[in-house]
Amino acid sequence: MPEFRKDIILDEWVIIATERAKRPENFKEEKLKIEKQPAGICPFDRGNEPMTPPEILRVNSQGHIVGSSDTDDWQIRVVPNKFPALIPDASAFSKRYGVYMVMDGFGLHEVVIHSPEHITNISELDGSRIKMLIKVYLERLRTIKKDTRIESVIVMLNQGKEAGASLEHSHSQIFALPLTPPILQRELYRTRSYYKQNNRCAVCDLLKFEKEEKKRVVFENKHFIILQPFAARNPFETWIVPKLHHPNFEQIPEEHVESFAHCLKMTVDFFYRDLNEPPFNFYIHTGPMNSRESYEHYHWNFELIPKLSIKAGFEIATGIDINITTPESTAEFMKASSAFKG
Amino acid sequence: MPEFRKDIILDEWVIIATERAKRPENFKEEKLKIEKQPAGICPFDRGNEPMTPPEILRVNSQGHIVGSSDTDDWQIRVVPNKFPALIPDASAFSKRYGVYMVMDGFGLHEVVIHSPEHITNISELDGSRIKMLIKVYLERLRTIKKDTRIESVIVMLNQGKEAGASLEHSHSQIFALPLTPPILQRELYRTRSYYKQNNRCAVCDLLKFEKEEKKRVVFENKHFIILQPFAARNPFETWIVPKLHHPNFEQIPEEHVESFAHCLKMTVDFFYRDLNEPPFNFYIHTGPMNSRESYEHYHWNFELIPKLSIKAGFEIATGIDINITTPESTAEFMKASSAFKG
Repeated sequence: MPEFRKDIILDEWVIIATERAKRPENFKEEKLKIEKQPAGICPFDRGNEPMTPPEILRVNSQGHIVGSSDTDDWQIRVVPNKFPALIPDASAFSKRYGVYMVMDGFGLHEVVIHSPEHITNISELDGSRIKMLIKVYLERLRTIKKDTRIESVIVMLNQGKEAGASLEHSHSQIFALPLTPPILQRELYRTRSYYKQNNRCAVCDLLKFEKEEKKRVVFENKHFIILQPFAARNPFETWIVPKLHHPNFEQIPEEHVESFAHCLKMTVDFFYRDLNEPPFNFYIHTGPMNSRESYEHYHWNFELIPKLSIKAGFEIATGIDINITTPESTAEFMKASSAFKG
Repeated sequence: MPEFRKDIILDEWVIIATERAKRPENFKEEKLKIEKQPAGICPFDRGNEPMTPPEILRVNSQGHIVGSSDTDDWQIRVVPNKFPALIPDASAFSKRYGVYMVMDGFGLHEVVIHSPEHITNISELDGSRIKMLIKVYLERLRTIKKDTRIESVIVMLNQGKEAGASLEHSHSQIFALPLTPPILQRELYRTRSYYKQNNRCAVCDLLKFEKEEKKRVVFENKHFIILQPFAARNPFETWIVPKLHHPNFEQIPEEHVESFAHCLKMTVDFFYRDLNEPPFNFYIHTGPMNSRESYEHYHWNFELIPKLSIKAGFEIATGIDINITTPESTAEFMKASSAFKG
């Protein structure tokens, strides 16, 4: 069973994921080799549905989100991860282990298969499929969040082997956690301090300033802004921020989904076309559910982090990233791209 | 000039390092390609001393730490980084920029060249050179910390291109910062809470428990313990922890230096021989200087982080690492190695 562990120096949870465990001697051959996936049978391709764990839901050929089915006329499928880092049949309570804390690896770890065709880059999905994908995320988030043992949910994508994708067939993942992870905790804490001090949302203020300065805004439509963040930790780090203040992505108004899908499609197209298909990760930070606290001050956001540089010893030791390019210059480069003219 | 920038969501500093800036269009060819360094003139080789910025200090051929010299009979040299992420001729004060905070990239960024011969792995240094290297770190730390504008110093190494080394010639780096970086801040904060609650140092308690349980201790000598941490964030993450409680590495008793050097030499030899020379980073966390606070509760430590797995979207989004192997199994594997029999 996977396990959460916490030591007493940093006091932050780590997942020891024994379901995908490697023997120590296997690491001799490892050396972070990044290889193309060997040709073979892909469990995410049409016709291979029985190779995945039992389906949770699907988008059928008519474009409707429906329950599981055993036919092969689907557009998107959600299935449990075959090698989960978290599992539902476990306890959500932590306990002491000597000087440490441990907890079963309770949670959900799901895979969203983007297409029955063997495509390898999310940019190959058309705009309507991207919109459907977002609706699938929303459907899962709304359902998962009914489970009171779950405190937060992360929707994320690994694009390319170098970004951690173990299967090349385009897919994203949903993790449901019995706790609020440290980065989200810090965002919640800092934006709450800002709110208390200024009586305004930090992200709303940031958007106002960025719209005035115009140096880092790449694109804007009625409901969203695409920008290069002022303190970008990575070259071409890209945020898609909703103009409407709300702590929760899953509460997005129905009529804003199209705008968000449009921004996401333009962004992934830019990376595919103008930056030569680099590896990247994206994720959505949405407010947790926690009966003890209110997160009305929080503003949900989407971040895309390209893997164009290496986190070296300084970054690992300090938590301070060194970015070798300015967000102003990348914003200018992106604004000139045809990807954002659509 | 490099610049510190802080946004208002995470409220953590990032360095925008324009001295090593890349144009956005250069990233088209990037894609995180890890290539062998092209053959050519290495500025760290004996005879090429004029290619580096002016020397700060050296270990001469008799093994003494001395000031700069222009001869080529040295064993270790310390020079400023040619493309510094931080520079000394700058202001150490932050100021507002719209809704954000900025600060000049003030600090020091030095390179410690391990050998005049063109060696590419720290394991190629013998025990006495490793001991000398540690003495050089101590000398620089003690000198740098006299500057009251400096709050913390990080000693670190990038082993291999995949770990961020831009030159293959074995070297480490010293960063002096006008602030306490977030990871050190959190360690200081958590261990202070522990101290207040238990009236004991968290790390001292951890060592006591590990010595009793014996499951994760790899090696122990009179003054140090090598262990695989209970909540290891990475496969084969290795800590070398001093038994003597002290917040500052640079206050290490003279007679403990040999023990530390011995542990470091065995550890890097293990990775070189038994794990087939993987990329890794190591660093030393030592207490900061800050007149406002006392850090007597802190316990300095050394951490080596092999790059044997990829930080993917989940880790980046949450700050929770997924480790696919247990520290108990890696400790057992390491204990069986001849590297730790010495």
